[in-house]
This record gives sequence, C-alpha cells and structure tokens, in this order.
Amino acid sequence: MIIITKPDIAPSAFDAILERIERAGLVAHVSRGTERIVIGCVGDERALEDVPLAALPGVDRVMPVLKPYRLASRETRAAPEATTEVVLGVESGADPCVVGGRALAIIAGPCSVEGREMLHDTAGAVRGAGASALRGGAYKPRTSPYAFQGMGAPGLELLADVRASTGLPVVSEVMDPRQVESMAGVVDCLQVGARNMQNFALLAEVGTARVPVLLKRGLSATVHELLMAAEYVLSRGNPHVILCERGIRTFETATRNTLDVAAIPVLRAETHLPVLVDPSHAGGKAALVAPLAYAAIAAGADGLIVEVHPDPSAARSDGEQSLTFEQFRAMMVHLGAFAAAAGRTMGHVGAGSAARSGVVAGRGALGVALPARSGSRTGGGAAA
Amino acid sequence: MIIITKPDIAPSAFDAILERIERAGLVAHVSRGTERIVIGCVGDERALEDVPLAALPGVDRVMPVLKPYRLASRETRAAPEATTEVVLGVESGADPCVVGGRALAIIAGPCSVEGREMLHDTAGAVRGAGASALRGGAYKPRTSPYAFQGMGAPGLELLADVRASTGLPVVSEVMDPRQVESMAGVVDCLQVGARNMQNFALLAEVGTARVPVLLKRGLSATVHELLMAAEYVLSRGNPHVILCERGIRTFETATRNTLDVAAIPVLRAETHLPVLVDPSHAGGKAALVAPLAYAAIAAGADGLIVEVHPDPSAARSDGEQSLTFEQFRAMMVHLGAFAAAAGRTMGHVGAGSAARSGVVAGRGALGVALPARSGSRTGGGAAA
Amino acid sequence: MIIITKPDIAPSAFDAILERIERAGLVAHVSRGTERIVIGCVGDERALEDVPLAALPGVDRVMPVLKPYRLASRETRAAPEATTEVVLGVESGADPCVVGGRALAIIAGPCSVEGREMLHDTAGAVRGAGASALRGGAYKPRTSPYAFQGMGAPGLELLADVRASTGLPVVSEVMDPRQVESMAGVVDCLQVGARNMQNFALLAEVGTARVPVLLKRGLSATVHELLMAAEYVLSRGNPHVILCERGIRTFETATRNTLDVAAIPVLRAETHLPVLVDPSHAGGKAALVAPLAYAAIAAGADGLIVEVHPDPSAARSDGEQSLTFEQFRAMMVHLGAFAAAAGRTMGHVGAGSAARSGVVAGRGALGVALPARSGSRTGGGAAA
Amino acid sequence: MIIITKPDIAPSAFDAILERIERAGLVAHVSRGTERIVIGCVGDERALEDVPLAALPGVDRVMPVLKPYRLASRETRAAPEATTEVVLGVESGADPCVVGGRALAIIAGPCSVEGREMLHDTAGAVRGAGASALRGGAYKPRTSPYAFQGMGAPGLELLADVRASTGLPVVSEVMDPRQVESMAGVVDCLQVGARNMQNFALLAEVGTARVPVLLKRGLSATVHELLMAAEYVLSRGNPHVILCERGIRTFETATRNTLDVAAIPVLRAETHLPVLVDPSHAGGKAALVAPLAYAAIAAGADGLIVEVHPDPSAARSDGEQSLTFEQFRAMMVHLGAFAAAAGRTMGHVGAGSAARSGVVAGRGALGVALPARSGSRTGGGAAA
Repeated sequence: MIIITKPDIAPSAFDAILERIERAGLVAHVSRGTERIVIGCVGDERALEDVPLAALPGVDRVMPVLKPYRLASRETRAAPEATTEVVLGVESGADPCVVGGRALAIIAGPCSVEGREMLHDTAGAVRGAGASALRGGAYKPRTSPYAFQGMGAPGLELLADVRASTGLPVVSEVMDPRQVESMAGVVDCLQVGARNMQNFALLAEVGTARVPVLLKRGLSATVHELLMAAEYVLSRGNPHVILCERGIRTFETATRNTLDVAAIPVLRAETHLPVLVDPSHAGGKAALVAPLAYAAIAAGADGLIVEVHPDPSAARSDGEQSLTFEQFRAMMVHLGAFAAAAGRTMGHVGAGSAARSGVVAGRGALGVALPARSGSRTGGGAAA
Repeated sequence: MIIITKPDIAPSAFDAILERIERAGLVAHVSRGTERIVIGCVGDERALEDVPLAALPGVDRVMPVLKPYRLASRETRAAPEATTEVVLGVESGADPCVVGGRALAIIAGPCSVEGREMLHDTAGAVRGAGASALRGGAYKPRTSPYAFQGMGAPGLELLADVRASTGLPVVSEVMDPRQVESMAGVVDCLQVGARNMQNFALLAEVGTARVPVLLKRGLSATVHELLMAAEYVLSRGNPHVILCERGIRTFETATRNTLDVAAIPVLRAETHLPVLVDPSHAGGKAALVAPLAYAAIAAGADGLIVEVHPDPSAARSDGEQSLTFEQFRAMMVHLGAFAAAAGRTMGHVGAGSAARSGVVAGRGALGVALPARSGSRTGGGAAA
Repeated sequence: MIIITKPDIAPSAFDAILERIERAGLVAHVSRGTERIVIGCVGDERALEDVPLAALPGVDRVMPVLKPYRLASRETRAAPEATTEVVLGVESGADPCVVGGRALAIIAGPCSVEGREMLHDTAGAVRGAGASALRGGAYKPRTSPYAFQGMGAPGLELLADVRASTGLPVVSEVMDPRQVESMAGVVDCLQVGARNMQNFALLAEVGTARVPVLLKRGLSATVHELLMAAEYVLSRGNPHVILCERGIRTFETATRNTLDVAAIPVLRAETHLPVLVDPSHAGGKAALVAPLAYAAIAAGADGLIVEVHPDPSAARSDGEQSLTFEQFRAMMVHLGAFAAAAGRTMGHVGAGSAARSGVVAGRGALGVALPARSGSRTGGGAAA
Repeated sequence: MIIITKPDIAPSAFDAILERIERAGLVAHVSRGTERIVIGCVGDERALEDVPLAALPGVDRVMPVLKPYRLASRETRAAPEATTEVVLGVESGADPCVVGGRALAIIAGPCSVEGREMLHDTAGAVRGAGASALRGGAYKPRTSPYAFQGMGAPGLELLADVRASTGLPVVSEVMDPRQVESMAGVVDCLQVGARNMQNFALLAEVGTARVPVLLKRGLSATVHELLMAAEYVLSRGNPHVILCERGIRTFETATRNTLDVAAIPVLRAETHLPVLVDPSHAGGKAALVAPLAYAAIAAGADGLIVEVHPDPSAARSDGEQSLTFEQFRAMMVHLGAFAAAAGRTMGHVGAGSAARSGVVAGRGALGVALPARSGSRTGGGAAA
C-alpha cells in the first residue's frame, strides 16, 4: 500500500496515518518529496484492506501494491506458468471436455432448450462438427419479464437425456442460489451469466458446488473485477473455475457488445484459470461469430462457447446471433488452421464414437500437452 | 415494429417476413423506397416480441415502436402526469416517509450497520438534520470475498430497534432471494443494489414482497433497462417501486462513477415511479456528495439516499464517501434553498417529535401536494 | 514518481532503474516489501516525463505523484482558493461579460449564424432574458460532409454587427489554425469544440491569441486531459481560458451525451480556471436543457452556454436541442432561484442599457465579489 | 427516413410533418398504429438531412433508413464485393506497398523519428522481418505540452533519406492543415491520428492531397463516424483512404485502449476501403502487441501498423508499447501461419532487394489477387 498525502497535510494528520499503519502491523517507509509525502507500507497490506485510509485527513490517494486476488493469481502458484485444466463431465461419466489443455474446448448449442428434438439434433450436429460440450439454457435471464423465461426443470432433464445419448457434457446457466444444489446434480458445468457476475450470493453458493463453474464477465466489469468474482468461488472451496470473455458494454452500437480481445492475454498473464470466449454474445449477429471466434483463438483463448440452433429464425431467444448447423460446421473447419497457428489442436473432431468407449480416451486424444500448459487438472468430485 | 430490409432482398424472403407478421396477428404496411423496403407492423407488436425477426434472411434492422415497459410507463396510466408516491413505514408503524411527494425524501445512514451505538447515534443525527428514513446495510456486496460482508441478521435487529426508538423507517439491501421474506418482515424498504439490477431471480422475489423496493440502476444499465427491471417487480404484483440513479461506469476515473443527472428528467418523462439519487456512490468522495446532491434536486429528483457515519475514517466500508454528522447537517441546511427553487419542501425537518405522536402527522406535514404530483400513493400492505 | 517492480526483478534490472532516476537528477527512496520493491523518486519528477520507465525490464507500474498541469493547477497559485475571472469584450468595447465572477455568465444564441435577421432577433431575445454574451457558429463542425458547414466569414461579420447594436460580446467556434488570427480580430472569445480538444495545432495557435478561449471537453476526454489541453493554451501565453463541460460519450442512448455534472466540483478543486456547462449538447433535446442547466448551477458552474433559435424546427443545425425564445426566458426566470441558492447572482438582467454607457459599468454592476472568488481577472489585451 | 409520432400528436402537427416531407420532394407513407403513427419517407432522404424533423412538435423519433456515407459505402460500388487497394509509394518510386490486397500490409517503425541512425537501423530491421512500409512521427500529438513534440521538418527529411536507401514507403502523421501540402510532397502516406479523426479542417485538406491517407479511428468514435470521416476525405477528391482500428476508450484500465476487433468485420461489410489495425496503441504494452496482431489478422484485417524501436527503454515516446527488433521478428514469424489461415500472404518477406530493381516488381510479387479482392487499385497521382 502506498499513500500519497495532500501538499498541505498537518503534522497531526500525518502522525495519525502512521499510527493506523503501525496498528495494522505494517512498517511505514516515508519519502518526503518537494510537495508531498509518500508513505510506503511494508508488510502484509491485506491487513489494511478494511481500513479506510483514503478517508483520513490529509490523504490524497491510496494505491495498493499487491493484487487482492490470491487464489486466482499466477503469483501464488507453485507452477506459475501453468494453466489449470478444468474437466467437464467427470461425475456424470460423459466424455470429458478439458478446458485449458492444448486442445481447444468448444462448447456449442442453443441459447435456450426449447424441446427434445431440437436439442438432440443440435447436439448431434455440434458433436459431429467437433464440439466437446453442449450448452443450453433451462433458466433464461431476459431483459423483459414478458419474454420466454426458459423451460425450467424439464429443460434440465432434456440436457441429461441428450448427454446420455451423445456423451457430451452439458453446460447450463444457474440464476438463483436455490437452484445450485439441484442443478449441480444434473449438469456438468454451472454457468454464471454476465448479469450475475457480481451476484455474490450466487457466487458463494456455486463456490460450494462440486461441478465446474463457467463465470462470464459482467457487461461493465473490469478484468480485475472478473478475477475478484472468481476469487469468491475459489475461496469457498470450488477450484474448478473457467473464465469467459463475452464482450463489454461501450458506446459502440454496431455490435451488441464490444469483444475485449485483449482481455485474453491480460488474463493469461494474471491468472492460471482457463479462458473461454463467447463470440455469439460479443457480436450479437451471426455474421460476426466466425471472425470473432478466429480472433479469440488467435489471441490465445482456450476455447469457445457458441450459440447454434436448427433454425435461428424460429429461435425463442438470441436467434439473430445463433449459427445454423452449416454455419457452425464451416466455422469449425476454418478454425482448425487458426488453432494450429496458435499451437493448439481441435479437440474432439472425429473422436466422438471412440471417446464413448472409454473414460480416458477423450483425454488421451489430446496428445502430449505442451510443458507450459501442463498445470493441475481439476474437474470436480473425488476424481479431480 | 418497423422492419427495414437489405437492398437486395429476395422476393421469397420478403414474403416470408410478411407471413411471420401476419401469423402473429398484425397487419403489414409496406413502403417501397428507392433502395430498401420498409415494413410497418400495425397491431399489438408485443405479439412479435419472441419472434426473431432480425434473424430472417433479408432483414437489415428491426425497430420497436412501442415501449416494452407497460406498468412502469406513464403512457398507460389513467393520470399520466402524476408521480406515484411510495410510502415507507406503513406496516411497521414508523413515521411514514413519502417518496415521490412534494417533500423531498432524504434517506441517510451508514453504509454498513457496525453496531448498536454507531447506528443509534447516526439515526439521531440524521433525523435531527431532517432525514426521513434510515439506511444501513446488514448484508454487504463487496468486490473482495475477504472484505467485511456485513453483520447479517443481528444487523437487521439493530435496525428494527433503532426504528422503534427514533420513528425512522429503515432501508436495507437484500442480496439473496432466500432473504427476501424474512427481511421484508423487518425492514420498511428492500434495496436492490446496482450489481443486482438484472438479478432476475431476486427481482421476481421482491416482486412478491409487501414492502417497497428501492431499485438502484446498474453500473452499465441504460435507463431503458432500469425501467425493464422495475417492470419485473411490478409485473409480479409489487407496485411500490422507487428508482435510484447512483452513477454509471464510464472511462472517467476522477470519480467512482459518473452521475447521470440527465437520467432524472428522462425518467420523469418516461415513468410515474419516483426517482431518488445516491450522491455518495456516484462521486465516491465525501467532498463531492453535497454538490451532486444539489444538482440532483435541481434536476428534479424526489430525494436522496446518502451515506453518513460517526467517524468515516473508522468506517468498515465506504469511509471515503461517507459524510460526518456535521457535513450532513451543513448539506441539509443548504439543500433547503435548492429544494425551494425546485418547488419542493424539506420533509421532516423539525417534525421529528410531532411525527411520533400520530400515524398521519408525518403525512399531514407535507402540506397540500401540487396537483401535478397527486398521483396514487402506495406503500405496501392493506393500509396502502 | 513511484515505481513498483515485478516480484522477480533481477538485481541488474533494479540497478538500471536506480541509474535512470539518478541520471535525471532525482533521489531514489527504496522500500523493499514482502513481494515487491517500491521506489519513490524525490525531486522534480518532471525531469522523468520523457523517460519510458514503464518500458524498463522488471518494472510493473509507474505512478506519477505530481499533477502534470502546472499553470492550470490551483496548487501553484499565489491565491489557490480564487477563481480566475475571464472577461469577454475587453478589446471590442462590448459590455464586458465576466466568466468566473459571482454573477453567472450566460452565453446564448443559435448553433449556426444563418442570417442577419435571425441573429439580431436572437441576440435581442437572449439579452432581454438576461444573457451576457452571444454565441453563434460561422464555421460548423458537422459529422457529414454533406451537411450545412456554416456561413463562414460573412457569418463573423454578422456577429460583429449584432455586437455593435446590442453590446453583447460574441463567442464563435474556430476549427482551423489558419482562422485564428482573423477570427481573433473579430470575436470576443474563440471556442474550441469538443472534437478539437486535442487538436494540438489549434490549441497552440489559440494560445498565441489575445482573446479568451472557451475550451470544450472532448467526448471521451478525462478531466485530467481537459486540464492538459488547457495547459497547452496557457503555456503558449494566453491566460484567458474558460473550461466547458458538455457531456461525455457513454453507453447510454437516451441522451445525446452524458452530462458529467461531477466534473464541475472536481474541476473546481483542481483548477483556478472558470467552468461553464453546455446543457444543449449534453442532453441533445430541448426538454432536457432546463433541468441540466439548473443542475449545473447547483453543482457550482460559473455559467452556461445555451443554444437558442427563433424557430428550432427550421434551424439548419441542432434544431432538436435549441430552445425557443420563450423557453429560454422561462428557464432564465427559474434559474434565478437556483443561482441564489448557489450563492450566485444573475448577471446582466436589466443591466443592458446601463452597461452600454461605460466600459466599466458592466463590471460595476456585478457588485462586490465574494472574497473567495476575487482571483485574478483576465480578458485579453493590455486592458486586462 | 422513418418518423414515429408521439401518442397524442395534434392533427395540425401531423399535417406540418407531412408538409415538410413533401416540400423536400419525398412521398410520405403513413401507417396508423394503435398508439402512434409511423411515417415512411420515400425518395432521396438526403434531401431531409438538414431538416430538423426531430424538433417538430409531435415527433418522438426520427430514424434514417439509408447510410449517410455514399462514397465509402459498398452499396454504391459497381463491384460491391471488392476491397479497394491503396498503394503507398506510387509517386516517390519506393517499393510499392499495397494495402487491401491479398498480401498483408505491415507498416512498422518508431513512434517518433529521433535521429538518423535509429531510423535507419529500424527501417533495416523491419524490412528484414517482412514489413512493407516504414512509420515514423515527425510531428507528435502529446497530451502534455511539456513532452517531446517531435523533430519536425528535419524528421521528414530523415524519412525521405531512409526511404531512398531501403525502398520502404514512409507513413507519417500530419496534425495541421498548413503542413499537408509540404508533407504530401515528402511522405507516401499521411496519417490522421485518432485525436484528429473529426478535425474537419484537416480532413478537408488531406482530401485535396495526392497521396493516400491513413485515417485512425477516434478514441470515442463509432464505426459509423469513422466512415463519415472517411467520407470527408473521399468527397474532397482523394480516393486513397485506409481505415485503421486502434482501440477505443472504455472503462477498462488494464489496457491503454480496448481493441474493437469486431470493427474489422463490421467495416468489411460496410465499406470497400481497406482496414488496418494498430495493436501497439490498442494494448499499450509490448507484451500485448503480438496477440492483438494475430487476432486482428484472424478477424480479417488487411494489415498492421506497429511501433518498433531499437531500444524501447530509451524511446522518447511510447516506449512501453514499442517492440524491440527481436520481438518484431518473432511476431512476424508467427504471423505467417495466421495469415495463411486467413487466406492471406505475408507480403514483402525476402522480396526486399528484388523489389528495388523495378517499379512493378513489388506488385508482381503479390501474385494473382483473389477474385473477391480484385477491386480498384488506387494510390495517388497519375500512375494510379
């Protein structure tokens, strides 16, 4: 913690600052400049976190030196260079989808689960095209209370059924702390949506779940705040956290949101957690999904979460940004070259049936991981 | 709904659009321009809300004509010019605090409830200076999981105790749908914080409560989205909604947030719901609270919610932006002239003891409301 | 300057940092923390301005301690509490308009000068309602090259004519450094528009002019950058700078821009330069002008610049946000009470003819300035 | 143009709207809805551009149907699918650098020209690594008037000298309309910086120059405004315009700006002009340059403009974001695979000496352009 005083600070005010620092167990290093005094606090500055130093008379600015996220930070890791691999499907017996490994993780599916047939067809199509997990919303956050709010519990059952038949782990959004326990018993990954990134009651609850959490960046959340939200989940005991950049809100109206592609290398430098990108919500239009997906992988993302629908013009939500099966297939074909350029592989392509025959086949197909990526592998449950 | 086609739309695609409009029971009015076709949809366009028109081939843009908020809108009111008055304290027997009347509603108190003595002292001080309700957080949303998270239930008890001794209705933030029922039995107003403005599970739950809801604008929420969030609460049956502008997130770093003072007249034109302003969170510094408060009242706000603490330099949260008792008193004194300039009165000043002597005294002290403001008065429970 | 190192900095890299600091003539104070090293640089840190310390190996962050604006800063003033008064009309013999005095400065007029009659009528109307200067664009910055670009030089002549007949000093926007000299010979104040706030060639040129400069904040400029732009003008020798908050660009689309009302008290604390507000461009709609004007004065602005047109529905630019004469008069009437509440007076109301009778009468009519405001008075030319 | 009325519009106000539309030579199509009236204006809506329809009584909203950029738009092109190729170096006899062809255009060099040796060394290094043009600022826009403002005219001479010895066309920023003529006689491309994107006097002036213009997106400019700025240049007669995305200003502080990578496909769909990306200013840190460059090419950019310096820790400007020679080389090596994945080639690599032997060799080395990209080729002067 560094404290900069106002130019005209009174001696008594200055002494009061020193007193507060020392009371917290830190040592104050004082540099008297020509106009201001700079006080460096040496010791564990977290002891000062709840001390409102900026409210003390004579204080102009207070600047933290250390990162307030500890569990999410690379700095505190034994192997700071490694990315943590989070595995979806460990408990359900689905074909494991590794997020954070050398192979890209591609999670695809409809915005909302709308019925058995559309879900089954979509799962088959995305698996065939190389996706490694299925997304689908049973509970939908909608801006309007009059819009379709999702199928609810029956939607979750459909996800479980389709997982059983296709082997794809399933990801679905949780919106209410009261749903966490029951949803965690069904899905392979709990998605926390952008609007709930700082819903601390929900974060605390998913922090007690045994399944991985896919945490989307809030519309106006800084990278730092995203990491603090992850820290909430990690600090409650759930180490299986996947971060997701999905566009932030800016003044630009040509796109639904502004994909902050630089967040990918920034996160890569700050945290060991894997990072996905959602090009569907970022651009908000089907025509933008592929170029944003290529850009995300080129910038170092560990994979994608993409909206795909049998007939976007009939979708009950997000039709404008959903890909058709054919568009998704075409994107996946082109993605291969970008993945290779980024030193990554396309995970499940063509590995579908093989993966069903044995638990570890899916993992084995990943080949030898790059040394720099061979971090800890986590995925929920005792198996992790 | 207006649909604008792409320049080169195929006849079959054009016919498909018309078919979707007519299937929803609307009539299509077609204007063929030199380059594009414009289709106006006449009828109840809400029937098209779940139709992804923008995903249809050949469609360039889709623009709604009607406002999607119905209950929050002025347009659908019998007396569209009136502001709805929301009354805090109806059920608890506190001195009623009317939000949306001619008298300004000033809600003041500490960020967090930290103990009995500090709360009692603050309540006395703010009441003496003219506040009409007490704020105080028992559950605190904090960016860091390691920061003070509030006293919890014992904090709520302290609020109830202090209400009993001072007559001030109490406002406290609810963060979890599981807390709604119990908190609604204690406090006079449930605050939904900025980070939860689109926590739809929470909005739905407070929509079933009998006490008023103070809904803060999200950090990156448009005015339109704030009204849609209010619509969630209203559509669940709770008509007692107070809106609160508290600053939005922009690129400017000189202040914690950017107070969107224009949101006040914009909301005034769009909705009958009353509008408060939180100058403490908007500016983030004690020195900015008073000028922002004056600006808010000058722009037409119905009142303020302000952080006040016996010793900001010892506050466990938000110390930098909390006013001392003396600073709050000074602000309230100056506020009177701005209130008068805006055609408003300062509510409770000097009415403290009188108000305790009878349930309606507080209201009577408001004098004859301006005709333009004599809207419906709501406040929860049968008494409203 | 404070330098924070990375956790794993090499000793040689650390020594290189110290060497750079000392080579610039400063003294390094080193605090070794548990994880990082903090280096405070004592001395004139401006010597380090062109040293790319952040590019040195092992450096994590560099934070300046001192404000980089010197001439604009309060800190370097002999009387740091005073506001500099900038006077419009000193050289032209117009009735002086003091910006930064106790009386509010109200600059009003059409967006564009469109012809003699409309300008004359508007000048008469705004003067009658209490305005103290006339605005009018001869050169117009327009987003589209196909839109009306202003009357050019003939428009300036019309402004001079109307000044002669009404006594109102005139303000007009300069867009091109080649126009500065000729325009400065005609108008009483050169306006630098928001889009040109960081047009450094233009800033340098108006910095050599003898007339005051009205510098509008850029659409995405921080308060800090606005002060740096003012510093450009001041450092070239022109001390007559007026700052103007006119709304910033955010995600909100309900208004043309977002008025950053908090910038007023922030600027008040940072700089001795006077601060105006442009409620017309901030809100972008006529209905928002008055509430934003009241808010600006309540927050401490020294005055307003407002668009007024004889018939906004026929205006060649900015019709949507221009007030009619009647709307302007009504606003000025209400503004009086807000001015009084803010400890200010309405300047020229009713002082029109008297002011014409002598050069100093206009100033005398301002009454005794508040001690705290009696700063230096500047206005261009030898007379200042 | 579509006009939506307020619910309660008076018949006389409605008639007045129709009268204005018809006076402008358009035909009004009226759709009476249940609550509002929608008026479609059929004809050339540009005739309504200067009519302040939104200021008419009873009008709620006005929405344009057509794009206001005509020359920049794909829609008005004979071959709407083609990208215009802009060639740097046509008049100076440098090795031509084609921007918008199949080969990527990589413009690299120091932020500021600081001296002969550093410029020569940098030119050699970037050419050797595959760059096709040299950047270098002689006039520098700096936030602080006290910072290094560039070498000025001597810097331009150094650029010309280094072009002569290396064959690389040179790009340099122009800040003042008075510099345009002389700079256009020296450099191969005039850069208009982000802060001057809406400096209309400068845009008009470069619109009369014979050399290409590299137009950078403003910090808070929408894609639409960038295209309107290009339209200024095009409408003055200079068809050689290159657009450049360089990051926009948002709330995120982890990066200097936020690279709006989606602007690339959005611009690709809207305009035939080529699009470069500046990853140096977007991220603001050397470590972010490569991942952002890869993302830009993956999203479809036509090339890059990158800051490279012999010793970033000694650079007089932008040291923190400049690459060393070695970093640049490494980036270029990896870029090849991303270029191939995007269907592009790396232009000049290894073609350096050959290109010097004949004027057209550089172009010939590009091979047969893809049919979809074989648009018009422009580059200034008669030779284009």
